[in-house]
Amino acid sequence: MSEGPARVTLSFEPAGKTVRVPSGVSVFDAALWNGIPVDSTCGGHGTCKKCKVRIADGSVPASRLDERAFTPEQLADGWRLACMANAVASLTVDVPEMTTRPKAATVGVGRQVILRPAVQKRLITLEEPTLSDQRTDIRRVLDALDDLELTIDPPVLRTLGTTLRQAKWTVTAVVVGTELIAIEPGDTTATAYGIAFDLGTTTAVGTLMDLTTGAPIAVASMLNQQQPFGADVISRISATMLDPEALQRLRDLAHSTLHELAEDVCRQAGISPDQVYEVALAGNATMAQLALGIDPEPLGVAPFILATDSYDGLLASDLGVSIHPRARAMVFPHLGAYVGGDIIAGVLAAGMDRDKRLRLFIDIGTNCEIVLGNGEKLMATAAPAGPAFEAASIRCGMRAAPGAIEVVTIGDDGLALQVIDDVAPIGLCGSGLVDAIAELHRSGLMDDSGRFLPAEAIAAARPDLAERFVERDGERLFVLASADESGNGEEVFLSQRDVRELQFAKAAISTGWKLLLEEFGTEESEIQQVLLAGSFGTYLSAKSAIGIGLVPRIPVMRIVSAGNVAGEGAKMALLSDSERHGARALLDEIQYVELSDRGDFNDRFVDELAFPR
Amino acid sequence: MSEGPARVTLSFEPAGKTVRVPSGVSVFDAALWNGIPVDSTCGGHGTCKKCKVRIADGSVPASRLDERAFTPEQLADGWRLACMANAVASLTVDVPEMTTRPKAATVGVGRQVILRPAVQKRLITLEEPTLSDQRTDIRRVLDALDDLELTIDPPVLRTLGTTLRQAKWTVTAVVVGTELIAIEPGDTTATAYGIAFDLGTTTAVGTLMDLTTGAPIAVASMLNQQQPFGADVISRISATMLDPEALQRLRDLAHSTLHELAEDVCRQAGISPDQVYEVALAGNATMAQLALGIDPEPLGVAPFILATDSYDGLLASDLGVSIHPRARAMVFPHLGAYVGGDIIAGVLAAGMDRDKRLRLFIDIGTNCEIVLGNGEKLMATAAPAGPAFEAASIRCGMRAAPGAIEVVTIGDDGLALQVIDDVAPIGLCGSGLVDAIAELHRSGLMDDSGRFLPAEAIAAARPDLAERFVERDGERLFVLASADESGNGEEVFLSQRDVRELQFAKAAISTGWKLLLEEFGTEESEIQQVLLAGSFGTYLSAKSAIGIGLVPRIPVMRIVSAGNVAGEGAKMALLSDSERHGARALLDEIQYVELSDRGDFNDRFVDELAFPR
Repeated sequence: MSEGPARVTLSFEPAGKTVRVPSGVSVFDAALWNGIPVDSTCGGHGTCKKCKVRIADGSVPASRLDERAFTPEQLADGWRLACMANAVASLTVDVPEMTTRPKAATVGVGRQVILRPAVQKRLITLEEPTLSDQRTDIRRVLDALDDLELTIDPPVLRTLGTTLRQAKWTVTAVVVGTELIAIEPGDTTATAYGIAFDLGTTTAVGTLMDLTTGAPIAVASMLNQQQPFGADVISRISATMLDPEALQRLRDLAHSTLHELAEDVCRQAGISPDQVYEVALAGNATMAQLALGIDPEPLGVAPFILATDSYDGLLASDLGVSIHPRARAMVFPHLGAYVGGDIIAGVLAAGMDRDKRLRLFIDIGTNCEIVLGNGEKLMATAAPAGPAFEAASIRCGMRAAPGAIEVVTIGDDGLALQVIDDVAPIGLCGSGLVDAIAELHRSGLMDDSGRFLPAEAIAAARPDLAERFVERDGERLFVLASADESGNGEEVFLSQRDVRELQFAKAAISTGWKLLLEEFGTEESEIQQVLLAGSFGTYLSAKSAIGIGLVPRIPVMRIVSAGNVAGEGAKMALLSDSERHGARALLDEIQYVELSDRGDFNDRFVDELAFPR
Repeated sequence: MSEGPARVTLSFEPAGKTVRVPSGVSVFDAALWNGIPVDSTCGGHGTCKKCKVRIADGSVPASRLDERAFTPEQLADGWRLACMANAVASLTVDVPEMTTRPKAATVGVGRQVILRPAVQKRLITLEEPTLSDQRTDIRRVLDALDDLELTIDPPVLRTLGTTLRQAKWTVTAVVVGTELIAIEPGDTTATAYGIAFDLGTTTAVGTLMDLTTGAPIAVASMLNQQQPFGADVISRISATMLDPEALQRLRDLAHSTLHELAEDVCRQAGISPDQVYEVALAGNATMAQLALGIDPEPLGVAPFILATDSYDGLLASDLGVSIHPRARAMVFPHLGAYVGGDIIAGVLAAGMDRDKRLRLFIDIGTNCEIVLGNGEKLMATAAPAGPAFEAASIRCGMRAAPGAIEVVTIGDDGLALQVIDDVAPIGLCGSGLVDAIAELHRSGLMDDSGRFLPAEAIAAARPDLAERFVERDGERLFVLASADESGNGEEVFLSQRDVRELQFAKAAISTGWKLLLEEFGTEESEIQQVLLAGSFGTYLSAKSAIGIGLVPRIPVMRIVSAGNVAGEGAKMALLSDSERHGARALLDEIQYVELSDRGDFNDRFVDELAFPR
């Protein structure tokens, strides 16, 4: 367990903005992460020499590039290239005003991102070769892009000569990061797209982004086609252990899912897939490994080992996506086997590493990931919540689909239900489950240990609800909808055993964040915001979540549904190379805490089974 | 036209060897190029810190790596890492004795190459992961290879987890250059192969090299399967201009040629193609571009432009070769459209940049490449010789195959022929053509302008040969074999027009090297060795070549057939990463001289049509 990197303070002038960043980050990245535009055409690779800033206070040694970019007087005066200036001590930085205003887009949890995608297009007009200027075709192109230091994707060479000559030496160079991936005839700089993928275990979402404006153009979602192999990651990993063909099959299904999403968004937007030059994918470690055909078995058995935490040099075709044949793929890195790229993307989108407030990020699922911290320090852990919140182990449980009870209220005038699509109910989804239990407890019909009150006590307290409590096959049930009231002629109920299932899940999660608070050295009351990630978080009632002790007891307004933050992180990575570096930096910034190691974990877990009074 | 880089003198002690190298070359490469072993495991990439040498005289600034590798006292004493020490001034370098003797192999024109292939295998035994050591699988591997700075070929990750666990954490890492391309279970360090390809316009040769010993294991050759598209590069380029399908087809034929050669050598040696991790290919610019599917049209029309002069990031599969699926391909760089990778490989194999002697390298073909120079300075040009030497435009011309007249002598006792395979003659190959003309001229039966003497003069001078001179359809012929003497009932003769064809070809070549001598500032008599490259050079009679003025008039012993030097260069590139850098350095060292630009070119060409008295 590392303590994470030290932090330094950067004050940007004339913006008057003071930020704390991990020691060693470049001034360039630090500025962009915090919405302060710095001139650059190369995107911070040290080649364009445009990101000139002056270190007004504090000191940064001059790099070799600085010695070429500045006069000795300027160097003495503190001028440096921001991309080469690593902040290892606190600094005050004067940032010259930009001649053109950079474009920015709002993504993530209210994050303002300065548009500087890894995908760049450059219109170049070359001089025709002559017997006295026999430079090679590619040299001629590279000489026209001499503010970039590029590697050449070999297939570019195949058609280069023909393209240059047919286009009469006016072409558009397509660069992704530091790689030249295509030369297109004429001026195509107006069109550049990317696709942000959120590849969830259950659902996959693709968003087509216009990289010239930062705007989302089309969205598509569908069930992850790997569903037949099981609902959760463990069942998919198990499949690969039992059947040697399964890995290939699961990879193909991930590819087919991503491919169909890509086709769909391009069709919706009416653009050619050839104009999409990059994809960014956020997914948990198992989804990412399966999509890349990487054997996931070590993720599924102790000590839970990743093949790799980060991915380089991937093509979109490695993910089965048919867009521009040389399009690149960025796959979010993983902190650990159970805190994967989806969480890194989510933390990026939430800006947790750049916020002064102490915030708690909870992604509820079969595996629940928890991140706690602020711009100074971040800690993460994973809690095995089990399938209760996805309602899979709940007797009348169902997905959040038409007919699912999603809101339950027990008021003075009795039981009230809200059903998705306002139809007669056929089951209970996760948010309804939490509501039902929270309401039973709040109204005194269930004690703190989770037991329904004895029938006599209920009859005395709430005679209007007494007949909804029945006993069947030795188990007590709370009937939410009778066979007559339901949409399929079958009772919809909550069983005593269902309550137990939820208690286990809730206890795993609350033990997780409580122990994380201890490790962090702070208290529940200090938490200024709770971010609930993922689709479950979108529907959950904050009041009920507090009621059962799933989240800290803080004002309801501070419990925020953050939506699909993994997908938002993927968009940010497409729109900004700097944000992408930020995602990579999170691996060093977030300290992973293994809670199951702790001797007192089981005691604490048992304590957490009870509902708060 | 650049003047080429300056040279510096390096004296290596205690070897007592003094060499001249281009300024800026690393001491490490300079030592290896000259057969002086320096310790290293990373092959000169600055990561293993083993190549410690002491700069005894002269100065090299300490690099950042030096500051980590040495104490301040050692730095002050002149200790440096040889791979980081660029020689920009003359130096004396003390090289510590190596603890193990490096292997070396003799390849090329008597070149002693220290075995340090780009392909490296490393046996590693890893500690099993635990809950307290959850490093990713790839991190565990990289930590065990921390003297190398590697990038990961993404497919390695797919099976990494399974391989490590099934092999109980003892595996062999396969590295090519700075890329980790495979992890093999157990210890496979004893087997590592590469294939050196010489892809000629006419003939292709593949040599399987054992990279652990430096020995060639198997050789195969075949006609380049592109033959149906024409005998020379221009006809193949033309094909792609006329038929849009031709490029794909020519690429497929190149792939098929290389694939069959690879299969053949593996079968001969009884090894699995999976054990071949790299190929090196020497070919002219057209052959290389076609094999890579790069449109060759700009090579074929003025101003003769290459798509690229060098190739990076290629896989063997890009050349259609089915060996290890992630095997790499090294393709020799080109100096220009008509001084291609085959010539760079040949110059490397001949060691022209490391020899004190002034040497002239001539590769005779439809296009003739000429390189002149020594370890101080190198110049190259290309001369369009036309097809005469390949006998294609000669009436009774044929390939050097059974039945071809390869040696012609006119002695006092008449005409004597030597025929390939000692059968009755059916035609005249290039060496026989040169012999016949040289002998006719030497014996006074042809004047300096190339005209057969009048019949009466021949009858007077050599009545024994008079009847071999006949006139048919207004053209005079010299009959080498009558219909009775020949193997197919048809006369084999040399026509007056054939002599003219040869004169044009000879004049193109001798104008080339004579002008190159002028540009170089030296004279014919200063040339200490002539290297004749390629298969034609192997058969040509040095005496006849001098006789017709094809090569400089120097002692016959100094005219050396260098054989298949392109293929030898490819072998060297497989055996030594340093030699490969040397090939790349030749692009800067060799000054290309465009002769057709010169105002006096045509005058000089006409002068050269005559045979020397």
